Amino acid sequence: MNHQEALTSYIAAFVAELVQTGITDVVVSPGSRSTPMAMVMAEHPDLNVHINVDERSAAFFALGMAKASGHPVALLCTSGTAAANYYPAVVEAYYSRVPLIVLTADRPHELRDVGAPQAIDQIHLYGKHAKWFVEMPIPEKSDEMERYVRSVCARAAATAQAAPAGPVHLNFPFREPLVPNLEKEDLFTLKSREAGYVAIEQGVPTLHTTQIEKIGEQLKRHQNGIIVCGSLEEDGFADAVVALSNHLQFPIIADPLSQLRSGKHDGTNIIDTYDTFLRNEDAKKALKPEVIIRFGAMPISKALTIFMKENQDAEQWIIDGGAGWRDPSLLSTSMIYCNEKSFCDAISSHVGVRPVSDYLNKWREVNAFTKENLMKIRETSELSEGRLFHLLSDMLPEGATLFVGNSMPIRDVDSFFHFNEKSIKIMANRGANGIDGTISTALGASTVLQPLYLVVGDLTFFHDLNGLMAAKLYNLNIKIIVINNNGGGIFSFLPQSNHPKNFEKLFGTPLDLKFEHAIHMYNGTYDLITDWNHFTSSFVQNLENDGLSVMEITTNRDTNLKEHRDLWNFVSQEISRLLKG
Amino acid sequence: MNHQEALTSYIAAFVAELVQTGITDVVVSPGSRSTPMAMVMAEHPDLNVHINVDERSAAFFALGMAKASGHPVALLCTSGTAAANYYPAVVEAYYSRVPLIVLTADRPHELRDVGAPQAIDQIHLYGKHAKWFVEMPIPEKSDEMERYVRSVCARAAATAQAAPAGPVHLNFPFREPLVPNLEKEDLFTLKSREAGYVAIEQGVPTLHTTQIEKIGEQLKRHQNGIIVCGSLEEDGFADAVVALSNHLQFPIIADPLSQLRSGKHDGTNIIDTYDTFLRNEDAKKALKPEVIIRFGAMPISKALTIFMKENQDAEQWIIDGGAGWRDPSLLSTSMIYCNEKSFCDAISSHVGVRPVSDYLNKWREVNAFTKENLMKIRETSELSEGRLFHLLSDMLPEGATLFVGNSMPIRDVDSFFHFNEKSIKIMANRGANGIDGTISTALGASTVLQPLYLVVGDLTFFHDLNGLMAAKLYNLNIKIIVINNNGGGIFSFLPQSNHPKNFEKLFGTPLDLKFEHAIHMYNGTYDLITDWNHFTSSFVQNLENDGLSVMEITTNRDTNLKEHRDLWNFVSQEISRLLKG
Repeated sequence: MNHQEALTSYIAAFVAELVQTGITDVVVSPGSRSTPMAMVMAEHPDLNVHINVDERSAAFFALGMAKASGHPVALLCTSGTAAANYYPAVVEAYYSRVPLIVLTADRPHELRDVGAPQAIDQIHLYGKHAKWFVEMPIPEKSDEMERYVRSVCARAAATAQAAPAGPVHLNFPFREPLVPNLEKEDLFTLKSREAGYVAIEQGVPTLHTTQIEKIGEQLKRHQNGIIVCGSLEEDGFADAVVALSNHLQFPIIADPLSQLRSGKHDGTNIIDTYDTFLRNEDAKKALKPEVIIRFGAMPISKALTIFMKENQDAEQWIIDGGAGWRDPSLLSTSMIYCNEKSFCDAISSHVGVRPVSDYLNKWREVNAFTKENLMKIRETSELSEGRLFHLLSDMLPEGATLFVGNSMPIRDVDSFFHFNEKSIKIMANRGANGIDGTISTALGASTVLQPLYLVVGDLTFFHDLNGLMAAKLYNLNIKIIVINNNGGGIFSFLPQSNHPKNFEKLFGTPLDLKFEHAIHMYNGTYDLITDWNHFTSSFVQNLENDGLSVMEITTNRDTNLKEHRDLWNFVSQEISRLLKG
Repeated sequence: MNHQEALTSYIAAFVAELVQTGITDVVVSPGSRSTPMAMVMAEHPDLNVHINVDERSAAFFALGMAKASGHPVALLCTSGTAAANYYPAVVEAYYSRVPLIVLTADRPHELRDVGAPQAIDQIHLYGKHAKWFVEMPIPEKSDEMERYVRSVCARAAATAQAAPAGPVHLNFPFREPLVPNLEKEDLFTLKSREAGYVAIEQGVPTLHTTQIEKIGEQLKRHQNGIIVCGSLEEDGFADAVVALSNHLQFPIIADPLSQLRSGKHDGTNIIDTYDTFLRNEDAKKALKPEVIIRFGAMPISKALTIFMKENQDAEQWIIDGGAGWRDPSLLSTSMIYCNEKSFCDAISSHVGVRPVSDYLNKWREVNAFTKENLMKIRETSELSEGRLFHLLSDMLPEGATLFVGNSMPIRDVDSFFHFNEKSIKIMANRGANGIDGTISTALGASTVLQPLYLVVGDLTFFHDLNGLMAAKLYNLNIKIIVINNNGGGIFSFLPQSNHPKNFEKLFGTPLDLKFEHAIHMYNGTYDLITDWNHFTSSFVQNLENDGLSVMEITTNRDTNLKEHRDLWNFVSQEISRLLKG
């Protein structure tokens, strides 16, 4: 059997099937062992090949595309440490439930563990962080092999998407010579089953009527309940949970990543300032719940987590269509493995519309009052992190995406980005909450969602500077706001900040970098913001700009800490006055 | 039991023992969960704490220190994807046999797999690429716990160093609050065994007299043998293998990483141009060996590999003190698991000094002739990759270290860096041959070895640009020569270069980056070399400079390919003329 013919037909069958499953994008990092797959992929008219030299960035870029589109994206790299560079993004994809199809080229068996160059042990390379791993066979040309390759491909795409979505890993051993025969006519014309090898219809978990009745009856016994929504992406969920809230008369505690802080859905019951008012003891007393219904990932707010922990006697129901265990406080009384939207629909129709609730009104009142008092942030004349996010909720255009870095930005969004009807999507890498790969993830998302704004701190920006290469190479449109407090701002909020010896060295870690240089290297426009007027005019001017644009806002870690604490203290005093008055 | 006291005494015992084992350096990436370990480490007077924000760079930096010093270096990071960023360097350390002690902080058991932030599955995070993994216990204060922690620490350091050296991974679950009590008096004063808990004396594999006799007698039967030395670091090996060569009258085929291409040892039998002359059929016929003795990793030269493959009937003996299987061609007839130096000593003394060999003289003659003809490279007037390495072998100062990138630089060193007596150490990451982490590894090495020159291509330089942060932060001294051929030059040497469609996109991958911007961001000096005179003057001027200095040489991939091929063809014709004449 001709080696090149076997190699070509095996790979062409795989790539053809990949496209049949609906995959449109693959991120490729250059390398030698992956040559045949890369060359065949580049030949397919319906596959977009994105080149990304740094595999760490490449994998986060694919993650961003998949996260933004909800569809799996493929990744391809050569053997060796190239594949190990995918690890951070694979881990993030696993925990944030994003579908990825990781394809790694490998040496054939006879070159493994015998000191051959670029040969490492790639079997189960990502451990438990890949949902499915397949060691692919050496390319052969036979009908059975084609059936196998196509079936694996279809399964990989379906497995990556099935709830909980996540990364799958296929490892391909390729022998030299590695060049396929691209002269072959009808490279991607499949001998049989032209519409795809096997269609995989994936059901979602739904509860039986008797389960719904039982849960519905239990719920009816409680007047004082809250709905807590963490990070969740599901079509139709916003309207379904708002309807549930209206039926039950429970407020919706909406985490920024719940996608409920912005949109065309009814915002009446959306609570968006809990991160502030749940720091106040009087509010916590007044708002004590009997039941908590939770959807999505664990919310970001520490104040909310503490509030739930302090109400251990409340029933806590966690609805998870991905059948995980999203309960770090270990307080759940029921785990309900059911598609989230279908749960809302079924319970709403079971309980019917309940009378107006004082408890709900009290949440709304405290929320409205807090929001009003938080407006004090507008008085901040110096450049500051809190006011920035408040401004952004005003200024971001309709339909924009706001991607935020971990550490401080996501927390400031939580505190200062309040409900609006502009359909702004808020994104962050909250599977493992790393500061790595943020630029690349946002750039990947920017190929799907426009306009896209990324707000990151300086350490996060630095960590993935290489990610900017993709913006340059593909003229991607992204507007980045770097909050440069010259180091790790979040550590000032932690107990070690009371131990000044070694604090700056170990935690403050000032980098003293002039990012302007890097922005110029990647052909971006750069603006060092000097005051709020400058920010506003620069922001407005930027609205129309294409390409990479970076605004840098320098802030001070100590001032920022003080400003946050002063504001929370002020608002807290006002809330106590309201509730005691 | 007081939590803080338990946390403090447990960690202090670990850190004290770490220092007792002889470890002097730890590379720390800032994070929250690792707070107690970082704070205690910073308190130890005999431990150098190096901060490195990007964990991928941090791990390669530690790898470079350990590689240069031969002693284990510790790494510390927080939980989550931070630890996953270590993966590429851990893999490289495993395959290149470099001792690392990887310490990762983790959430305690009750926060694992329950959706807690920054909690990922860190058990066996690096799979088979860690030599030893220990899930450490939750800190407790008891004599037994102290004994356990100290024993594990001693074992970790010994395991990392035992042949084959490699990375070990200890995972530490820490509960909040995370701040240790640094007020404690005599934090590191150990109650017992002040000189260290347990001394581990590691033997090396040596052969029994009967084994030596058997091997010695077998060797005596052959006149035509060669010694092939790949990457190897062992005190005293150079002199021992030169003595073996003199006794046996076998030439030494010296890979650049064998550390035999430069030094005070006798260079008479060192063959350093085989990568050129083994492309010639007449030379290969004239130099056919009956026996091949191999030390160290598989050599870099493809011509040499093919030569050995074409001589399958030759006995091939692989001496490996690390008991691996460094034989990708699967041609070994004997695997000899014995310390390399002791093997040389024992065989030399068994065989005694043999009479002068024609076979050895023929190798030396062809080598000398090839070297003379390769001098034609000096005539290259345009900036070129080959001539650069030839120049470097002349110009590098006594005792310098030359760290080279993978892909083309290491191959050009192989072709053009010839024997000299200047004790120049040549380094590269050849465990898994990745282009990742090269700047960081070289910077780590630069803290041990001075002066240090790094020569890399533009893709390799780009891949680890973040690594330059350490140079800025610690004012490290490194002289970098970037060969910028705007893309992946090595692919022009591979078969896919004959398929121009998509070649530039998939393999050429031009980045069009002006690195000057990045160098300025990291406070380096930058020189864009315009011709050879400029290079020479810049090089000489640089000799006295401290800090980060970068010289960029732009070359052309096609010209480079042609120049290499023309030179090899020319030399090959001359060799045929010599041998046939």
